[in-house]
Amino acid sequence: MKILIDGMGGDFAPEEIVKGAVRAAAETSETIVIIGPEEAINQQLRANRWKGDNIEVVDATEVITNDESPAMAVRKKKDSTIVKGMNMLRTGEADIFISGGSTGALLSGGLVTLGRIKGIKRPAIAAWFPRAGKEGVTLLLDCGASVEAKPEYIYQYGIMGSIFVRGITGNESPVVRLLNIGAEEGKGDELHKTAYAMLKESDLNFCGNIEARDVIFGETDVVVTDGFSGNIYLKSSEGMSLAIMGEFKKKLTEGVIAKAGAMLAYSKIKEIKQVFDYSDAGGAPILGLKGAVLKIHGNSKATEVYYAIHRAIDYVDNDITGMITDAFSKNEYFAGKGEE
Amino acid sequence: MKILIDGMGGDFAPEEIVKGAVRAAAETSETIVIIGPEEAINQQLRANRWKGDNIEVVDATEVITNDESPAMAVRKKKDSTIVKGMNMLRTGEADIFISGGSTGALLSGGLVTLGRIKGIKRPAIAAWFPRAGKEGVTLLLDCGASVEAKPEYIYQYGIMGSIFVRGITGNESPVVRLLNIGAEEGKGDELHKTAYAMLKESDLNFCGNIEARDVIFGETDVVVTDGFSGNIYLKSSEGMSLAIMGEFKKKLTEGVIAKAGAMLAYSKIKEIKQVFDYSDAGGAPILGLKGAVLKIHGNSKATEVYYAIHRAIDYVDNDITGMITDAFSKNEYFAGKGEE
Repeated sequence: MKILIDGMGGDFAPEEIVKGAVRAAAETSETIVIIGPEEAINQQLRANRWKGDNIEVVDATEVITNDESPAMAVRKKKDSTIVKGMNMLRTGEADIFISGGSTGALLSGGLVTLGRIKGIKRPAIAAWFPRAGKEGVTLLLDCGASVEAKPEYIYQYGIMGSIFVRGITGNESPVVRLLNIGAEEGKGDELHKTAYAMLKESDLNFCGNIEARDVIFGETDVVVTDGFSGNIYLKSSEGMSLAIMGEFKKKLTEGVIAKAGAMLAYSKIKEIKQVFDYSDAGGAPILGLKGAVLKIHGNSKATEVYYAIHRAIDYVDNDITGMITDAFSKNEYFAGKGEE
Repeated sequence: MKILIDGMGGDFAPEEIVKGAVRAAAETSETIVIIGPEEAINQQLRANRWKGDNIEVVDATEVITNDESPAMAVRKKKDSTIVKGMNMLRTGEADIFISGGSTGALLSGGLVTLGRIKGIKRPAIAAWFPRAGKEGVTLLLDCGASVEAKPEYIYQYGIMGSIFVRGITGNESPVVRLLNIGAEEGKGDELHKTAYAMLKESDLNFCGNIEARDVIFGETDVVVTDGFSGNIYLKSSEGMSLAIMGEFKKKLTEGVIAKAGAMLAYSKIKEIKQVFDYSDAGGAPILGLKGAVLKIHGNSKATEVYYAIHRAIDYVDNDITGMITDAFSKNEYFAGKGEE
């Protein structure tokens, strides 16, 4: 198995990418391929005193930044880590591609180079979400791959999300819910009402609507929504989490008595941070492409990279892309099963 | 001035409503009118040892619950607190109506009984949002009054939100931003792109898009979005806040050492809770109706009711409804000012 990682993707590339790759490589026999400017990557490997034989470096001289038009950049920068990486997926030189680079470029590059799985209307970014006071994580999709939405897309997210969760966790019948502005049937705009009807008709384990407030408490395995709302959900939760943790850090280090208190309570606070910490979630797969792509956060550090590589191995081991291709070719989970 | 409050609105009515009203009444010379089953309300007033003369009780025998169809309930339950309350606003027997009851019924009742201000396409629920590490609050609208969205609605939310913030805070030129999935111009779906163009053309202090992650850090005064996204934003932030605070409470009371630490750090934790506590925000005005309506959370307790009454006095003092009516009749802030 070859796990390909974008050596130049994200705010802390290439240093943190290589550091995370080295940490993961020491624990697996799979090959990790880092794509990026050869000399820079090799220099980081030396800085990390890498002596093993399961890291390879593939040269790519260009980088697509977040400021560029993704479609344009993908067309022009043929020697960029993203375009070259997608090509390696297409030709089978790599089994999965991890990148903290421009989401737009990954989507554009993925659509142009790999294309969509037959039957899939739109790819989706699927993010793992922590659960408060409960085991496990919740998968949320789409988190912004498509800006324009149709009920069919949301319905297909339900299928892809269920397959992914089943493949990764072994849960044979993941609970699917639709993110909506009320829990009762009939809530929401036309888009969500129609998506609800389609999900209800399907063979998925669809259990109705879920309000945004309740997702974090983990009564569901897969939450589906349009890319706009999914993005708002993900980022507002992230903002609130950052804000509260930031305030705790500030307040608990203010004054001598509070400081002493904070030191005593330190281990517990660390535990809480871990619950809401996204670093071990291991990236957001872009589902629906003819190839496995794992998007990691642009501010990923070595720990996030390390976990993403582990998650990527699971992804390939369980052949998620093959399972989705299979389900769509057989019309599994479809309303009016067997008919197109 | 007569501040009317729904004695039966919310999970802790009438006990907490009356308690909050008594607390507020002791501090103001304005008259607070509580609407609800006369005997039940009077009993609560006695339980709170109310002896003053600025609380009045208006009898209403019916209550609209959250389980009913709002439109139907408003038509049928003529003696409900919400229908009677809206009628008192219309006839001028009250200057503002505070309710923790069904949002749908408040909207339906408001539209049927009061109607929209001339020129307003859709009313909006506007919620105050806390700021991390900064003074002041941010107004977010629409939080779910309209499920279907049009660019014009969002644009009008910008106008109503600016007027409200100016009226309440005295800020002459509130910064308005559009909630979107990216900060750059050109991001989002057609709805948000068109709304962006309209806001940019207007005389509002429009400063572009804002991502959901950044709202809490308070770089803006008014955040506008469609009702669906606004509701997702508000409720996901609320869920995350509840989840983290819940974990802190749980973890910090686990074990003897952590408990001691938590006690020492207690005052600081309380300060943090206050930052993210919505109770002093004082309710969400429904803007755009021909009358002042303040929706408070269904789980409001006496403290929330108390703050809402104070906010309501500000609202009436500053004649927000009059200011909005004025602006729309004069086409203030409009793109191509002076033309309809």
